[in-house]
Amino acid sequence: MNVEVVAVGTELLLGQIVDTNSSWIGEQLALAGLHSHFQTKVGDNPDRMRLVIGQAIERSDAVIITGGLGPTHDDITRDIIAELTDRPLVRDDNLVEIIKGMYAARNSEMPSSNLSQADVPQGGWPMAQQPGTAAGLVVPVGDGADAKVIYAMPGVPYEMHEMMLGTVVPDLIARSGETAVIASRTLRTWGVGESNLGEMLADEIARLDDPAVGVTLAFNASGVEGLKIRLTARAASDEAVAHLLDEQEARVRDVVGPIVFGVDDHTREADAPRNNMEAVVLDALRAQGLTLGTAETISGGMVASRLVDIGDVSDVYRGSLVALSPAVRVSTLGLDPALAEAPASGEQVAQMATNAANILGVDAVVAIAGDRTGGDLETVWLATLLDGGVEVASAKFPSDRNRLRQYSTITALNALRLRLVKRA
Amino acid sequence: MNVEVVAVGTELLLGQIVDTNSSWIGEQLALAGLHSHFQTKVGDNPDRMRLVIGQAIERSDAVIITGGLGPTHDDITRDIIAELTDRPLVRDDNLVEIIKGMYAARNSEMPSSNLSQADVPQGGWPMAQQPGTAAGLVVPVGDGADAKVIYAMPGVPYEMHEMMLGTVVPDLIARSGETAVIASRTLRTWGVGESNLGEMLADEIARLDDPAVGVTLAFNASGVEGLKIRLTARAASDEAVAHLLDEQEARVRDVVGPIVFGVDDHTREADAPRNNMEAVVLDALRAQGLTLGTAETISGGMVASRLVDIGDVSDVYRGSLVALSPAVRVSTLGLDPALAEAPASGEQVAQMATNAANILGVDAVVAIAGDRTGGDLETVWLATLLDGGVEVASAKFPSDRNRLRQYSTITALNALRLRLVKRA
Repeated sequence: MNVEVVAVGTELLLGQIVDTNSSWIGEQLALAGLHSHFQTKVGDNPDRMRLVIGQAIERSDAVIITGGLGPTHDDITRDIIAELTDRPLVRDDNLVEIIKGMYAARNSEMPSSNLSQADVPQGGWPMAQQPGTAAGLVVPVGDGADAKVIYAMPGVPYEMHEMMLGTVVPDLIARSGETAVIASRTLRTWGVGESNLGEMLADEIARLDDPAVGVTLAFNASGVEGLKIRLTARAASDEAVAHLLDEQEARVRDVVGPIVFGVDDHTREADAPRNNMEAVVLDALRAQGLTLGTAETISGGMVASRLVDIGDVSDVYRGSLVALSPAVRVSTLGLDPALAEAPASGEQVAQMATNAANILGVDAVVAIAGDRTGGDLETVWLATLLDGGVEVASAKFPSDRNRLRQYSTITALNALRLRLVKRA
Repeated sequence: MNVEVVAVGTELLLGQIVDTNSSWIGEQLALAGLHSHFQTKVGDNPDRMRLVIGQAIERSDAVIITGGLGPTHDDITRDIIAELTDRPLVRDDNLVEIIKGMYAARNSEMPSSNLSQADVPQGGWPMAQQPGTAAGLVVPVGDGADAKVIYAMPGVPYEMHEMMLGTVVPDLIARSGETAVIASRTLRTWGVGESNLGEMLADEIARLDDPAVGVTLAFNASGVEGLKIRLTARAASDEAVAHLLDEQEARVRDVVGPIVFGVDDHTREADAPRNNMEAVVLDALRAQGLTLGTAETISGGMVASRLVDIGDVSDVYRGSLVALSPAVRVSTLGLDPALAEAPASGEQVAQMATNAANILGVDAVVAIAGDRTGGDLETVWLATLLDGGVEVASAKFPSDRNRLRQYSTITALNALRLRLVKRA
């Protein structure tokens, strides 16, 4: 089954927005074992949209469109679909109520232009998932052996993701009659580079060259999220696929050891669970009945922000003291004034950790200190506090601001993770 | 002159790599005043490449291809171009020497497979810029009034960028005979949705429908970065374009007022400057000689993290107190215990702001408080402190964690911005 992707929006052609939607959709299709041969970007122009979407539905079995479902005059995706499929637009009263309800919940009146968002090509239907005012559309094309389908989703990524996973992928799988099961599992690692990992796993990679094994292995360098090892298996049943993945995961872990900090299971049903370094550290703390606090200078609140980003964490994570000036290091972190004024050091970051444990009343602390000196690499000081004991390390990271903060954050959390693994 | 972009690579379709090349090329074309109506991604497959590139050169005046110029068996871009243009590949001895020289410089022997990278379609020529072993190609198609052109560049971004700016854009401008100057300016806004802004600006949009005005206006909904209004002008000289943009910016500001918080100027030479809400607020504080601190519960350090992300800000921004548990609200923020235990309120966020000003020793504070209650919308309490006066507001945001925190952050910063604008 061939599925084609069309991303609509002049802003995509002008490079004002990078089309990450098509890439993400391509990845989901590949995970579902569906082929995708073409992805096209086209502007908000009726003639050109007609051309691109018309050609796509002619040469492919299904077309996934993103964008052009908004309420403004240049949002014409639903009109073009109606025209191409000979299905006039019909106002869906239920959708009108849903959209009105969304405005009411924000205490505002629905502008009348939004009514067009309740129009659906006759014989098509809106998707059940609707996080915003733009409904996703499923529009059948032809019937019998020639039955094809057009899906239209908004270009807003989180809205599109929900519809893609909730409606489009399951519907495509049902239409494709695919019976083989495909699943992936990703092992997240931290601390070893790609070429070294490739050398460590050379024997495994050679073994998997044989398609009879039914598993493939790929690296995915994910920068501040570390290096991922992605295993993909194909077999007749869920059990057989799970068995293949279990076996291969064990073989990889045998070789690479504790650098694996987390595992993502990708299935057709579920999005990759959130399973990053922050989640792993918080889970380990929770399992051991410990609370966490943080103290930050150069990372500027990023440790806090990343920890809070993963969910309701306040049962474990209690707070952060972010001190960007020497005076604040004294007033909030209680550092000795001389130490607060001095350049970052092991002594400074250790005192930050110790004081933060007392001020925040927590069992474990991650502290990060550093000064920007302007070199290619900056030295960052990292401390972890656990069971009253402080361990200090330093590391050099690229001075690019964002990467410096990200690498500092994940390296410091990884140091605590390794202590928690030993402690357990 | 219509220019079409084709990105070649199966890894792009599978979503293993996001195609940022096409977006970047689209932006360069727009800045050069060249139209780009289609961008297509296609895998390393001869039939499908023939189809896509053949169609592109038929319907457009020029085609820019990236990818598929490497030395491996699936790199077939030059073969397909040779076939489609009826120009057999001829080995270029000069290119052979260049490529051999690159290997020699790395003290390694050139694998014989690399010789294919010295093949050029007859009548075409390699680009002068060649940072890697893959030469960029210029291949004329047809002649006289029907003369068209295909450019092929490697997919490695920095190699492609050099060739695009060094050869492709100047060559296209020369071919197009374009003498007009084009420039864009983006007004960043916060606080009004797209359909309301569309209604506010309906008269302006109608006025600009007349091409004689020489200015276009487009909205670009950028989520947590707000809604952008992009003005693009075309005229005979730099001065005339700047005048058109100045005039149109003034007309828009007359209608929409202080919701415009920042302006990006785009020129051919310069990339868009960093000009987001955080930068605007810090600049305003700096200009008025004020320091800033933050106090956060539900935003969990995101205000701190976003402020620190934009550069060296410690001259203005001093630190954040991030308190996720009632006990920490007492110990670090000094809240009254009853208030620290109670649900978030205007009183709570006001006390957070007042206390943070004292503890951090700063002139201005942004404070954000809230509890997750599990509804579709969460209420967030925002406080700003300036000149000793605290102003409190509440807002409802979607309960999606990341968006809730992002919207809270930017809305709170915007509240401080509006006070600073009045104060100035």
